Amino acid sequence: MNIVMAGTVAMDDIKTPYGERIGIIGGSASHFSTAASFLAPTSIIGIVGKDYPARYIQYLRKKGVDTSGIVQSKDQISFYWKGFYENDMNVAHTNDTILGVLSSFNPVLDEEKKNADFLFLGNIDPVIQMKVYRQMKKPVFVGMDTMNFWISSRKNELLAMIKKVDALFINDGELRQLSGEVNLIKAAGMIRKKGPKMVVVKKGEHGVLINGILGTEEFLFFTPAYPTMMVKDPTGAGDSFAGGFVSYLHRVHTQNNGKPIGLADIRHAAVWATATASISVEGFATSRFDKITAKDIRERCDFLYQYTKFEPMPE
Amino acid sequence: MNIVMAGTVAMDDIKTPYGERIGIIGGSASHFSTAASFLAPTSIIGIVGKDYPARYIQYLRKKGVDTSGIVQSKDQISFYWKGFYENDMNVAHTNDTILGVLSSFNPVLDEEKKNADFLFLGNIDPVIQMKVYRQMKKPVFVGMDTMNFWISSRKNELLAMIKKVDALFINDGELRQLSGEVNLIKAAGMIRKKGPKMVVVKKGEHGVLINGILGTEEFLFFTPAYPTMMVKDPTGAGDSFAGGFVSYLHRVHTQNNGKPIGLADIRHAAVWATATASISVEGFATSRFDKITAKDIRERCDFLYQYTKFEPMPE
Repeated sequence: MNIVMAGTVAMDDIKTPYGERIGIIGGSASHFSTAASFLAPTSIIGIVGKDYPARYIQYLRKKGVDTSGIVQSKDQISFYWKGFYENDMNVAHTNDTILGVLSSFNPVLDEEKKNADFLFLGNIDPVIQMKVYRQMKKPVFVGMDTMNFWISSRKNELLAMIKKVDALFINDGELRQLSGEVNLIKAAGMIRKKGPKMVVVKKGEHGVLINGILGTEEFLFFTPAYPTMMVKDPTGAGDSFAGGFVSYLHRVHTQNNGKPIGLADIRHAAVWATATASISVEGFATSRFDKITAKDIRERCDFLYQYTKFEPMPE
Repeated sequence: MNIVMAGTVAMDDIKTPYGERIGIIGGSASHFSTAASFLAPTSIIGIVGKDYPARYIQYLRKKGVDTSGIVQSKDQISFYWKGFYENDMNVAHTNDTILGVLSSFNPVLDEEKKNADFLFLGNIDPVIQMKVYRQMKKPVFVGMDTMNFWISSRKNELLAMIKKVDALFINDGELRQLSGEVNLIKAAGMIRKKGPKMVVVKKGEHGVLINGILGTEEFLFFTPAYPTMMVKDPTGAGDSFAGGFVSYLHRVHTQNNGKPIGLADIRHAAVWATATASISVEGFATSRFDKITAKDIRERCDFLYQYTKFEPMPE
């Protein structure tokens, strides 16, 4: 059964210190599903404009993505982001955002998608996220992302959505904004108490922090970023991280025949996601994923193991 | 046999969002030796002014520190730092630095200190660091720290000193300055190739990265910061880290009866040092160390183990 992912399928113009690309494939659902494709197929719920290149839909299909839930508008244009990065690749600068079709996105799920076990909600309007969520019949795992715009403009709707999910993926700046707390450890704890079972804090080059609860056991887990030396385009790193994370848990769930996900699985999901995201930033858009296999991701996981492991401290 | 530590014994005026203290104990040697005291005694090589409070020397002695190598000037005043921290505790702002006795620091080691196995050189003038180093007869481990001022004013002397050491401790900003490279992973590799066996990059709240070589085996190791929620005064955090690190290796060396230090020991030293530094910042100057035992440091190491551990990725 596929992961259902509601998010954007878009086009991007991107300039970084390593080059410039015009009209390349973008959007949270494209990045997520491509990154997830090494472990699990995704069904995208999304909308594209009348101008959207058919070859990008074909590209996703070749990755095993179910694109039957992508509606094509007959009159509106595609969601388009134009931006650039300077030397500090942690900061995206926006030249222009064209909402296009996104302003009339009204997702309707078919029976198969309503019955999926895994749902991920990209960083779209929390009102739309809730519309998708409410159509699901028995989700086993629900993850969501958000962004600064919704934190300032739709805080109540966002908090209502957060209550429902197993995992909130959020970056450090957004977490500070949402919680009003500078200390990320405190902030993650505060937001986790508002409902989600896990708050997954993406700190970019500074790694990932998870504050979670499993049954009644609270836990903290940290994994550093994979020390890649070739960050060409960070666009979609967070979506690739989420795609890696959710697809890892989806695979565990499928292999376990319903046995609940454990803490060891969550740790592995975070490491797999870290490795996946580190590969995504080494090329523009999703291009690096076209040149690798799951074995390459796996090798980076093994590196992260060596990079961080130590034995329990001797007496 | 004691660790020999050449550095400053000073006074500080410090203001942070948590309070203000006037004329408290400061200096790299005070922080280092206090932090090291949980595992190993330190012999300080340093100089204080005619005005230096006798009670601070007494304080160090009570920690088991050998203060016989601290010279007291008859005419000059003590090294004094006056500074403050705002909400971003990673950045120290200086109001005033009074060099005092430091301008005439000319360290001379007695026979016992010349024969020590472990030497640490605080972030003093690299010309003085070299003077101390040259007096040592058979050091087994030499570590050093430095700072932005020497990187810009004494680069050649600093590079000559770096060649001689087993471990260079340096913070992220200083590493970028010294290497001219923004990417810390690349920068650490570049500087390690200039001579030191390990470059230990202190990234404050973002943890510690080590690029090292042991025999012919290159390694990278990363440990996150301990997620303390109570940073009251970061002054001396780097010196406390170094004190924890070097004292851990000193203990291994002593217990091993000369068996060489291994990679597992270096990893443990970094974790112990991380735990030690996290405690130091929870109070002004060295005050938090007065209220804890080695067991408290050990508990934070165990937390860091749980915080970062994961099993090798399953097939």
